[in-house]
Amino acid sequence: MTIDGTARRADARRNVESILEAATALLATDPAVSVNEIARAAGVGRVTLYGHFPSRAALVEAVSRRVIASTDQALDAVDLDGDAREAMARLLAATWQLTYRFGAIVVAASDALTPEEMRRVHEEPARRMRALVERGRDEGVFRRDMPLSWQLTTVQAVLHGASAAVHRGDVPADDATRLVTDTVLAALAVTSSG
Amino acid sequence: MTIDGTARRADARRNVESILEAATALLATDPAVSVNEIARAAGVGRVTLYGHFPSRAALVEAVSRRVIASTDQALDAVDLDGDAREAMARLLAATWQLTYRFGAIVVAASDALTPEEMRRVHEEPARRMRALVERGRDEGVFRRDMPLSWQLTTVQAVLHGASAAVHRGDVPADDATRLVTDTVLAALAVTSSG
Repeated sequence: MTIDGTARRADARRNVESILEAATALLATDPAVSVNEIARAAGVGRVTLYGHFPSRAALVEAVSRRVIASTDQALDAVDLDGDAREAMARLLAATWQLTYRFGAIVVAASDALTPEEMRRVHEEPARRMRALVERGRDEGVFRRDMPLSWQLTTVQAVLHGASAAVHRGDVPADDATRLVTDTVLAALAVTSSG
Repeated sequence: MTIDGTARRADARRNVESILEAATALLATDPAVSVNEIARAAGVGRVTLYGHFPSRAALVEAVSRRVIASTDQALDAVDLDGDAREAMARLLAATWQLTYRFGAIVVAASDALTPEEMRRVHEEPARRMRALVERGRDEGVFRRDMPLSWQLTTVQAVLHGASAAVHRGDVPADDATRLVTDTVLAALAVTSSG
């Protein structure tokens, strides 16, 4: 292995990383963004980009795989122990960030992903949410006069409503975590009748 | 006017009414239902149906106009006075029935409706909801630590989530009014911090 070869490989790794970062940021807000715009934002030429990713579809696929891996990591990092309401606030904040930042990318890439990958994208967050709502119900801090499945429907509906409202410009993105969290916790909370 | 002519006109009115009733019921659950199925459910022949409605599109248009008129009537009949929480429960029950029963028809007919009609369909329920949430905030029974526009987004999100959950079979239609109402009232209620 020559010094030249090592330097070239380090360069290539940096370029791939820059391309993936730029593509992730741009695809999240504009799923139709062009390869030229991605190359420009990454600070590489078109030829370099196509040297690493032979087609736009291959790049979108690589971006979505990376997003899925970082989603799993982000959810794994959420502390789900302790008071169920506080754990729910942490899980909602993480889930909201992922929904808002990466939702469009996963939709754009859905043709390229395997059924197993699509299942992971949708079911992993849902599985954690279900387990936490169940624990809150068992511990008496979340209401039990509604079916668990309805409560999960409500959480999903509020997350998607928030994403649409932010993209429409009705709600500032910085306020969304607090609004989603306060609204879901209020909907789940035990009431005098619950 | 002969006695025969009067009887024929009464017959025609009854047939039109039967056709519109059958079409409304069938289109609400299956927007692709055929003219033959509608004629059969109405107890009239194909020729009679086409005598009154020259095309499927004309029938769908007539059904959606009728649905819009009955939506206006149903919303006008809701008592919006008194305690804002109780008024909200009544408005949500009426809006839920309309969303669930007629949502698919209005979507199916959206090409045939004028912009003014589409505006009425969407804005009339939204206008009443906005006025009521505003009153509840002013009177101190709904929380004010969230923007009004976010609270309206939440109401819409829960209504649409419920409609999807009922159509998926996750929630029995008979339970939906109570679940929607309890969830929205909990999300709007003043809390110790609100």
